[in-house]
Amino acid sequence: MTIIVYELVGGDASRPFSPHCWKTLMSLAHKGLDYRREPVPFTGVPKVEGGAGKTVPIIRDGERVVVDSFDIALYLDEAYPDRPSLFGGEGGKSMARFVEAWTATQINAVIIGHIVQEIHQMLAPDDQTYFRQSREERFGMSLEECRQATQERFDSLKGRLDPLRLMLKRQPFIGGESPLFCDYIVFGAFQWSRICSPVELLDTDDPVNDWFQSLLDLYDGLGRSVPAAA
Amino acid sequence: MTIIVYELVGGDASRPFSPHCWKTLMSLAHKGLDYRREPVPFTGVPKVEGGAGKTVPIIRDGERVVVDSFDIALYLDEAYPDRPSLFGGEGGKSMARFVEAWTATQINAVIIGHIVQEIHQMLAPDDQTYFRQSREERFGMSLEECRQATQERFDSLKGRLDPLRLMLKRQPFIGGESPLFCDYIVFGAFQWSRICSPVELLDTDDPVNDWFQSLLDLYDGLGRSVPAAA
Repeated sequence: MTIIVYELVGGDASRPFSPHCWKTLMSLAHKGLDYRREPVPFTGVPKVEGGAGKTVPIIRDGERVVVDSFDIALYLDEAYPDRPSLFGGEGGKSMARFVEAWTATQINAVIIGHIVQEIHQMLAPDDQTYFRQSREERFGMSLEECRQATQERFDSLKGRLDPLRLMLKRQPFIGGESPLFCDYIVFGAFQWSRICSPVELLDTDDPVNDWFQSLLDLYDGLGRSVPAAA
Repeated sequence: MTIIVYELVGGDASRPFSPHCWKTLMSLAHKGLDYRREPVPFTGVPKVEGGAGKTVPIIRDGERVVVDSFDIALYLDEAYPDRPSLFGGEGGKSMARFVEAWTATQINAVIIGHIVQEIHQMLAPDDQTYFRQSREERFGMSLEECRQATQERFDSLKGRLDPLRLMLKRQPFIGGESPLFCDYIVFGAFQWSRICSPVELLDTDDPVNDWFQSLLDLYDGLGRSVPAAA
């Protein structure tokens, strides 16, 4: 049975950019499952599957609807235990929550201020209105002010990646010799930036860049199916 | 059979302070294994078990000698598979390397500048000479200059703990519902500071402090067997 994955898109449905949706695409590919992608604009999310969740990704697998990229990964491991695991055991499920929290606070929260205007420009008109209002309320400033107000944080990004850089001296993926969901969590952040903004986050000689490029190569170059922003 | 654990001490053998040795003590207690502690000063490390390693902890378990807190934890899980696991599976072994790298770069590297003079004061005279020379060479400045030179980093410590803080909203330990070696890695850092310096790193209403206190309570208060620095 083909799994339906609802994923966020802007005005151009061929450039899905949501970091969380990318985690789910990589998870489905990791499990080797058939899936069909359903594009959803921001303002369409409340209508998905009769209002199943407030955010995408959402998947439908037969009778089952699952919301949230982490919960989807947990579901996929439970429903398809004979396919490659996304967590590598119970300890991995718990520690992936730490990787998730690290990514949210140290990467995504740093990138957003830098690319929020680019995201806005990618959206269809109705979504632009929703996005500007909700994000300006969240950040307490206009979208146009965000970049300058968060520049210092953004400049600190490379240093914040030291944990990943040090770990990569020992093993090629956070999951060990091959990637697990924890890698896709961090991948989602860099893929989001890659698709929304032409600013390169990583130097070409940074081991973190090598790691990211190898994840872009996976599953017949799934991540490269959307070209980088020019 | 009783496992011998060689652990670093200063002039007062009742106040072992090494973050890495604390990881191993917690690991042995987690596994419920009998152990005997052998105090070793810095300058005694090269003589342990005929020069088995350049650092402690080192353990001897019968014929087997193992060096390094992470390798010891891996060994204990392999040698005693019927006792509670320290990693919770293969994924956990890999992701614990990320927690290790995060702790090394974001916590230990920040704390050291602040407590290096206190550590020096705790050592026996021979060790003081070794420690001052090796650390001044490593840091490129006198021990007395370290604190001021690294004050800005130290002031950033609370913010660096955001990943742990966010994760703790979801689960009580990095290992999930109960602690794993990954928790002991981070615990070691705070225990090191607690024993060497009277400066409180964590506010009493910080969820990270609650987590640390609950780890100090474990195994009949093993961590509290050394009182905090006054």
